[in-house]
Amino acid sequence: MKDIKEYIEENKDRFVQELIDLLKIPSISADSNYEKDMLKTAEAVKLKLQDAGCDQVKICETPGHPVVYGERIISKDLPTVLVYGHYDVQPPDPLNLWENPPFEPVIQNTKIHPEGAIFARGACDDKGQMYMHVKALEYMTKNDELPCNVKFMIEGEEEVGSEHLGWFIEQNKEKLANDVILISDTGMVSKETPSITTGLRGLSYIEVEVTGPNRDLHSGLYGGAVGNPINILSKMIASLTDANNHITIPGFYDKVEELSKEERKKMAEAPYNEEEYKDKLKINDVYGEAGYSTLERASIRPTLDVNGIWGGYIGEGAKTVLPAKAFAKISMRLVPNQDWKEITQLFKKHFEAIAPKAVTVEVKPHHGGYAYVTPIDNVGFRAASKAYEETFGQTPIPQRSGGSIPIVSLFEKELKSKIILMGFGLDTDAIHSPNEHFGIWNYLKGIETIPWFYKYFTALKKEE
Amino acid sequence: MKDIKEYIEENKDRFVQELIDLLKIPSISADSNYEKDMLKTAEAVKLKLQDAGCDQVKICETPGHPVVYGERIISKDLPTVLVYGHYDVQPPDPLNLWENPPFEPVIQNTKIHPEGAIFARGACDDKGQMYMHVKALEYMTKNDELPCNVKFMIEGEEEVGSEHLGWFIEQNKEKLANDVILISDTGMVSKETPSITTGLRGLSYIEVEVTGPNRDLHSGLYGGAVGNPINILSKMIASLTDANNHITIPGFYDKVEELSKEERKKMAEAPYNEEEYKDKLKINDVYGEAGYSTLERASIRPTLDVNGIWGGYIGEGAKTVLPAKAFAKISMRLVPNQDWKEITQLFKKHFEAIAPKAVTVEVKPHHGGYAYVTPIDNVGFRAASKAYEETFGQTPIPQRSGGSIPIVSLFEKELKSKIILMGFGLDTDAIHSPNEHFGIWNYLKGIETIPWFYKYFTALKKEE
Repeated sequence: MKDIKEYIEENKDRFVQELIDLLKIPSISADSNYEKDMLKTAEAVKLKLQDAGCDQVKICETPGHPVVYGERIISKDLPTVLVYGHYDVQPPDPLNLWENPPFEPVIQNTKIHPEGAIFARGACDDKGQMYMHVKALEYMTKNDELPCNVKFMIEGEEEVGSEHLGWFIEQNKEKLANDVILISDTGMVSKETPSITTGLRGLSYIEVEVTGPNRDLHSGLYGGAVGNPINILSKMIASLTDANNHITIPGFYDKVEELSKEERKKMAEAPYNEEEYKDKLKINDVYGEAGYSTLERASIRPTLDVNGIWGGYIGEGAKTVLPAKAFAKISMRLVPNQDWKEITQLFKKHFEAIAPKAVTVEVKPHHGGYAYVTPIDNVGFRAASKAYEETFGQTPIPQRSGGSIPIVSLFEKELKSKIILMGFGLDTDAIHSPNEHFGIWNYLKGIETIPWFYKYFTALKKEE
Repeated sequence: MKDIKEYIEENKDRFVQELIDLLKIPSISADSNYEKDMLKTAEAVKLKLQDAGCDQVKICETPGHPVVYGERIISKDLPTVLVYGHYDVQPPDPLNLWENPPFEPVIQNTKIHPEGAIFARGACDDKGQMYMHVKALEYMTKNDELPCNVKFMIEGEEEVGSEHLGWFIEQNKEKLANDVILISDTGMVSKETPSITTGLRGLSYIEVEVTGPNRDLHSGLYGGAVGNPINILSKMIASLTDANNHITIPGFYDKVEELSKEERKKMAEAPYNEEEYKDKLKINDVYGEAGYSTLERASIRPTLDVNGIWGGYIGEGAKTVLPAKAFAKISMRLVPNQDWKEITQLFKKHFEAIAPKAVTVEVKPHHGGYAYVTPIDNVGFRAASKAYEETFGQTPIPQRSGGSIPIVSLFEKELKSKIILMGFGLDTDAIHSPNEHFGIWNYLKGIETIPWFYKYFTALKKEE
């Protein structure tokens, strides 16, 4: 595969332009106003898979946003790689914090990306990383370097909890049969330190509504005598964590695995500089659960974050109102063994229990997923590791991520294969944030590394 | 003044129509998008004052929204009544809870208002109650029943803290010289139980901004390790009141007067039914400071209410974001002797002190005002009391209100006269809320009662 660097060099401008075209379509799965754009994006992905060498590419209807499926089968005797990715993106707001409109991609150089980075919603998460696999396939088919079978399953609901992907997998178990599932929807430590994500946190996402009086009231005439839903919601949220930032929901920690001293010691060896970390985020101090390091808080420990809150008068100026309602979106990151459905119920039960009689609360479970851990001794992981060695010149370090890909644990359960998370993004890429971007160097490095994975995976499989 | 009932009977349809026309102009002082409508409203008030018999009516510029001034001077030897009111209104949101658009007035019958009520923002607070005085003047001038001098000062910034009225009074002390200040911007117990407001709470209105990281973050990658401004703001707000709903700001209660057993006993005699109160608001329980009754919590005790809160993702669906910022609008109702400027500083100092190092907070004082108590033995109060006796057939009960008219205490300080609060609205009129309304019976009753105040005030003044 000597000539892959060459092929990338010759085609990189086109690779970048094709991604930019894809990024221009606002495929926001959370917002029903973007239905048409979702379909347009699925259509674009379908055409690109065909161009790259897939046959039988289809846009598969689901009760929600469609899944794009494509495959290239060489021989029943060869192993099969199933590539998973998603074409939907997070909502772009707050819009006013974007330096360029989120769906008008621009290339700009940054300190970390002197070769330039593409700025747009979805640049890294996940259109950019998903598209690396399409271009890697193009290289392999055009240069007769595809050593095994490949299948693509690109969904449109990852950012809203992959609500219908389970249903789709159920319907298509045979079609999706594979030996390993390959995903690029995570990051790596740095451009100098490649890493493979070996763990993901689970998720439970909930919306709560606190209702006090039957109408907004004058805070002078009723203030102090009638329960204010915002004051009360604040008290309820505050009580969900104690002074040590332990979560107070009864039973929440029952199934949380405590890592051994050895494991924690090994984790602590990962390159990390707290001063740099704080400086990057412009914070004076980190903040989290007592007794755990920042890396641990962000990976092996469960969390509870309010993702959004609103109630009362939020316009310009002043309004002395005691509102009828207050709302919050709350998500919990979960660790292995925590059952997100069980945690969701524990939250609901507890939140309803702590509500004072002066208000009524409604707890609406949103979506969720299980945590996942990849064993590092399986063929897929070893193949990925060797691929990084080829292109980075060093062995990638295994790393537990704090993020969630709710569907991953389901893949293993339903399709009985291991999931390999080869991520090429960086923490600084601002995914889910304004000014999301993806380094062109990372993008091309991904395209270069992926074919090596196919080569080594096929070879190691033969040896098995 | 026998013929006043007659005059009202003959003109009531016009009185209602004129008010409706005034209510159609969206004079929202808090929102700079309504500048033009503010001026349009001031212009309309000016014309109505002229029609009613004022001379030298002027729209007086201020650094903010203008004040409409008018007067009718009969003789230097006669007492002068200064009428204060405001032509600005509260913002109407949440709009979706209005049964009819807030600036398209409609008349509907309600259980409490079988004679019909006018539904519109400002119907009661304060266009409707202010306009009673204009129509009362019309009656007195047209029927030669005006026994003394009258001045009108109708401002446009009451709902945003009367920011520039102090400046205006400073500039016009002589012009505004008077013997009593008459205001209808409060309510009465019920249509059967007339009452005069003898006390108002003070106010300190503050906006806070809590900033964490320099950008919105992915709650999976950073959740648990980086301080979440919403979680932290919730904890800070929650800590501002203890388990007994006492306010925890150091020094907050230092100057609060404790009422005597006797005073509290007298208060407790006011007609009040907790079951009816809860039923009207559709709440299962009241909620407030331990050791005080609902009436006390809503009148003689200081309070702290969050009037608005926002941060993170508040759109449709889910977004797993750890936001950079969270905001809240917080107001405190104050009681006699509490200095709102001092309380504002105590709040600022405390709020900054309790912020964890993981965030920075900005506390922006908005506006405020002092509490006020009217002595019930002065001429103005006695004249008002006799006026109610004429039109309601019974003696009004003195009542402390929980609301605030920040400027009232300044009137006494600068103009050296007492303030009489003759309110004709009802608690159920939903001022500051969706579907605000004003009973036509109350509106006309106000127009009927006011001239009697002039008559008795002038007479009692002579006796002095």
